[in-house]
Amino acid sequence: MTRKVSGPEIERIVQLLGRLPGLGPRSARKAALALIKRRNDLLVPLAGALAEAVEKIVECPTCGNLDTVSPCSLCEDPRRDRSLIVVVEEIGDLWALERAGVVNGLYHVLGGHLSPLDGVGPDRLNISGLVQRAASGEVQEIVLALNATVEGQSTAHYLTEQLAPTGVVVTRLAQGVPVGGELDYLDEGTLAAAIKSRKRL
Amino acid sequence: MTRKVSGPEIERIVQLLGRLPGLGPRSARKAALALIKRRNDLLVPLAGALAEAVEKIVECPTCGNLDTVSPCSLCEDPRRDRSLIVVVEEIGDLWALERAGVVNGLYHVLGGHLSPLDGVGPDRLNISGLVQRAASGEVQEIVLALNATVEGQSTAHYLTEQLAPTGVVVTRLAQGVPVGGELDYLDEGTLAAAIKSRKRL
Repeated sequence: MTRKVSGPEIERIVQLLGRLPGLGPRSARKAALALIKRRNDLLVPLAGALAEAVEKIVECPTCGNLDTVSPCSLCEDPRRDRSLIVVVEEIGDLWALERAGVVNGLYHVLGGHLSPLDGVGPDRLNISGLVQRAASGEVQEIVLALNATVEGQSTAHYLTEQLAPTGVVVTRLAQGVPVGGELDYLDEGTLAAAIKSRKRL
Repeated sequence: MTRKVSGPEIERIVQLLGRLPGLGPRSARKAALALIKRRNDLLVPLAGALAEAVEKIVECPTCGNLDTVSPCSLCEDPRRDRSLIVVVEEIGDLWALERAGVVNGLYHVLGGHLSPLDGVGPDRLNISGLVQRAASGEVQEIVLALNATVEGQSTAHYLTEQLAPTGVVVTRLAQGVPVGGELDYLDEGTLAAAIKSRKRL
């Protein structure tokens, strides 16, 4: 008796969906089934959108963002302040900042954080590109919007050293109580940062 | 300042992935990003697999299974016992039984369960096809492998009535303690069914 159901085509979709973050084998099967059952409003459009992505989406050679034009539409946007570069670890972080609509400058995607134990040294991240952009004369401030993790912070420390010769002002995100956060649920590190950076009312 | 990031192509993928079961807006974004970043080992193969599915996968006119051949490979498998039909609500149930490798007969997918409150009457399910198959003379037993829910069981009751004139034996799955289940965690209904259908050792 066969254990695989309905031939290799569906199995292949299940397998590929199962490699996406957040989808286990069981939810990948459910997702594949939903795709195939909803042929016209889900399968056909998604197949088309992915084929288009394969054809069109490229990495921006300047900032590392993904877009259908190169340089990307953020780098080319004339309304953006070209004297400010916000450095992020991953494209997902860039998306989060754009959704919040809080950055009117340019971006620079490192492609991760320094992690010697995992073999990620400075050469594996897009650091030389950042130093080059900082030295171009156009840039006045670089905001290190890295994760508030040990790796993120040590990457920030390394970047600060590398950027020092360019004379550009280097800043980092403020740390403190998240908006809507309850003190009772916050860790000691956050509370310590919030007390230390307290503001006068 | 734009709120949508990286143009409509990526947004469209995020939106479509977000319609899959188990993926919310946030995980859809993560999945889309993973797809685009892992172009060669994920995006390209998935785009290809979905395009192939669009082209090839059809619903079996006999049993309702999805396959690239019609009738499906399960219906056409000469090793299967054609006197036995296992009736399931959804294709996912068929897949579960096939993975378990416990059915050597044919299947019949109803496409859901009766649910008068949601407007799902007998005409919305593939019931007439089942009665036709039952009356063909080849079938000796029909197993109602429907969910052990109120809707599943009332659908089973309705099917039993509809199938009565064909003279075919109609059975249902056994109910009781799941294998590996601990009594302490089971609901009263399951315990009652397990006691009632107890077996002599």
